[in-house]
Amino acid sequence: MPERNVIRSIMVETPSKPGNLGRVATAIGSVGGDIGDIVTVQIGPFTTMRDITVHCENEEQLHAVIDAIQSLGGGIRVRTVSDDVLRAHEGGKIHMKSKMDIRSLADLRQVYTPGVANVCRVIQEDPEKARIYTSIGNTVAIVTDGTAILGLGDIGPVAGMPVMEGKAALFDRFAGISGVPILLNTKDPDEIVRTVKTISPGFGGILLEDIGSPHCFEVEDRLKEELDIPVMHDDQHGTAVVTLAAVISACRCAGVDLKEAVVGQVGLGAAGLAICRMFLAYGVQRVHGVDLNEDAKKRLAAYGGEPLNSLEELMQTCDIVISTTGVPGLIKPEMIREGQVILALSNPKPEIEPEDALKAGAGFAADGRSVNNVLGFPGIFRGVLNAGAKRITHEMLVVAAEAIADCTRDGELVPHPLNPKVHREVARAVEEVAGRGL
Amino acid sequence: MPERNVIRSIMVETPSKPGNLGRVATAIGSVGGDIGDIVTVQIGPFTTMRDITVHCENEEQLHAVIDAIQSLGGGIRVRTVSDDVLRAHEGGKIHMKSKMDIRSLADLRQVYTPGVANVCRVIQEDPEKARIYTSIGNTVAIVTDGTAILGLGDIGPVAGMPVMEGKAALFDRFAGISGVPILLNTKDPDEIVRTVKTISPGFGGILLEDIGSPHCFEVEDRLKEELDIPVMHDDQHGTAVVTLAAVISACRCAGVDLKEAVVGQVGLGAAGLAICRMFLAYGVQRVHGVDLNEDAKKRLAAYGGEPLNSLEELMQTCDIVISTTGVPGLIKPEMIREGQVILALSNPKPEIEPEDALKAGAGFAADGRSVNNVLGFPGIFRGVLNAGAKRITHEMLVVAAEAIADCTRDGELVPHPLNPKVHREVARAVEEVAGRGL
Repeated sequence: MPERNVIRSIMVETPSKPGNLGRVATAIGSVGGDIGDIVTVQIGPFTTMRDITVHCENEEQLHAVIDAIQSLGGGIRVRTVSDDVLRAHEGGKIHMKSKMDIRSLADLRQVYTPGVANVCRVIQEDPEKARIYTSIGNTVAIVTDGTAILGLGDIGPVAGMPVMEGKAALFDRFAGISGVPILLNTKDPDEIVRTVKTISPGFGGILLEDIGSPHCFEVEDRLKEELDIPVMHDDQHGTAVVTLAAVISACRCAGVDLKEAVVGQVGLGAAGLAICRMFLAYGVQRVHGVDLNEDAKKRLAAYGGEPLNSLEELMQTCDIVISTTGVPGLIKPEMIREGQVILALSNPKPEIEPEDALKAGAGFAADGRSVNNVLGFPGIFRGVLNAGAKRITHEMLVVAAEAIADCTRDGELVPHPLNPKVHREVARAVEEVAGRGL
Repeated sequence: MPERNVIRSIMVETPSKPGNLGRVATAIGSVGGDIGDIVTVQIGPFTTMRDITVHCENEEQLHAVIDAIQSLGGGIRVRTVSDDVLRAHEGGKIHMKSKMDIRSLADLRQVYTPGVANVCRVIQEDPEKARIYTSIGNTVAIVTDGTAILGLGDIGPVAGMPVMEGKAALFDRFAGISGVPILLNTKDPDEIVRTVKTISPGFGGILLEDIGSPHCFEVEDRLKEELDIPVMHDDQHGTAVVTLAAVISACRCAGVDLKEAVVGQVGLGAAGLAICRMFLAYGVQRVHGVDLNEDAKKRLAAYGGEPLNSLEELMQTCDIVISTTGVPGLIKPEMIREGQVILALSNPKPEIEPEDALKAGAGFAADGRSVNNVLGFPGIFRGVLNAGAKRITHEMLVVAAEAIADCTRDGELVPHPLNPKVHREVARAVEEVAGRGL
């Protein structure tokens, strides 16, 4: 299914008679528009106004949708078309709030001078107290250089800010973490590492975000080595956690024993390699991978996986196949073997449509629409911050994936991201493992 | 008056009879404790519980206060002593909040993928749109290297965090600005400048805070030169704005024409020099200064002021004297001339007590207790952010000082910092001047 990120609210007026909404909905669907929420704004004796959210693939389709409604006639009219998404982002999505009211001189003297001086002195005498008397231990920097923003590529850190603010909003809502976007105007790994290290005293953790490959590997490895707070590149490990969770659920569905299975990863980019490492950490014995890039295959071998020479060989060898190549239709139905588990995760178009894979004999097939990082990073950071852990280990990531899988309903791939239980369970599992390591 | 930053809540139980609170209050005062708020927590038929906030100079005085209450007898008892200031700082004072609720998949698809991709694209095509669709234009980095935290000195950035969080809390409450503390683990000016420049894309302005002298000059000058967002070192210019406002009010009180007066600054540290520059920008023709440090005097000359050779010469020459030396009692009563305006601003003890200066013939005298930066920086940044200004000029700082002076009641030095009118008027004045320059 193509990505539909042209989302508009269309205010439609119809005569107040049964059947008109059906005509409007049919018109929208006839040109490929996908309807989201419908809110009835006003019902009068003669006319009714409804706000219909429509998801389109592109602007042309949006215009076709509007034309289709307008040409229905019979008193049906498009009144306004508004871009709710843009409107929702106006002024940005986050704000640093004071947790205290400042309504009296006494409040001011607590928050600020002279009261604050004593708090500074307490921390100076015992730096560990900063975890108690400042927000540092609950604050995570969301760091990007803007080189790999979503699927949009190297669009720069400022154009990537809506994503960073989105992550901060999710941190707040799902885990009570204070997330601070840090936009870097350098792509040089040395400069990135030096800058993040220099600003690190103010943060309890670092979430690297949308940093391109291959410099993301160096940046993450060095920061993990040189800092004593948790560091995680979400596009690698966050994705890998949610992917492992989805594969655990898929294997339960298909009746496959994951640890005994042969797993194949098609595409060894940052996410693909992290997924392989996650399977190895989970205890899968044989993890294969293919990629056109020889360096990527060497990396896989260094992590303990076994690179193969061709996609055909991988499809022949593996019981479970995960693909993250960004190449639609790469996997042909004739490559599928009976009972194989196929997760074709590339967005917006998968390497093979799930229905085609199932028709070709796959035991289970899904695409990447529901495999969303939001299921992982809030709870993972909540867990390590709670434990005061200095790093995020693969063991923690594995228990996070298992917690997500355990919250998944039978027949589904992953849980609903708005289910607060998921984030709580991920945090609990991570904190338990992290606490053991201290 | 000495700084009293040992602040405690003492829960006192007394028999429910008139006169007991008077005895308790007298006991506290007899050993030098200063009483803040008194809250009656419980009134029973026999006993009454009151929470009494007491400000002390140090722990010894606090113990003396407790002993004085305990030894009253007659059923008067200290029940608990608690540190409300520390308690208020538990968990830190700020949190990055999502401005949007995330209660449905539709909300999630707006805040995060896929809706956010379109917002990124809009900014990629027109980077100016970042001011509309992100929080960057309303976010100010509060940057410190921890080298000059309050009067505590070089205690490091983490121990300084309570001050930075305090500033962020005041930004939020008084100006609706999102303030983000950035703690730097370097004191090297090159590293500070490089780091702030590297993270600057995420911010609409930079508030430098508690950075020591003399490296604060280089850091500020270079950042102003090399960044195209407003940069201000609060300990210099914020202090200077509020000082100029106080001097304008003092001159009104004393019937002195400030622009025609000869002004003298005792102590040419970061704040002292900034105060001199502010007077020159305001239009004062003759600004003198003294300091033991020859470099500081050269700086003053470079800014257009006239250094003098001794405090005695300055006291002889100047109509208005401001001192920021940190040396209590530096100005002797016999130095004061009839009608002189004296602002001895050092905390916790001034260069001369106002009553002594008045007794010696001063036309007006005050110390620095009420000259609080909180009157300046929130409105100044609100004004420049509203205008989208690229820098903060001395002209803007002068109108900020005038706006503060115009909000001051007759006979007072500065307005009450919780008066929302001050911050609004400062913002308005700054925005007007900033808008003219665009």
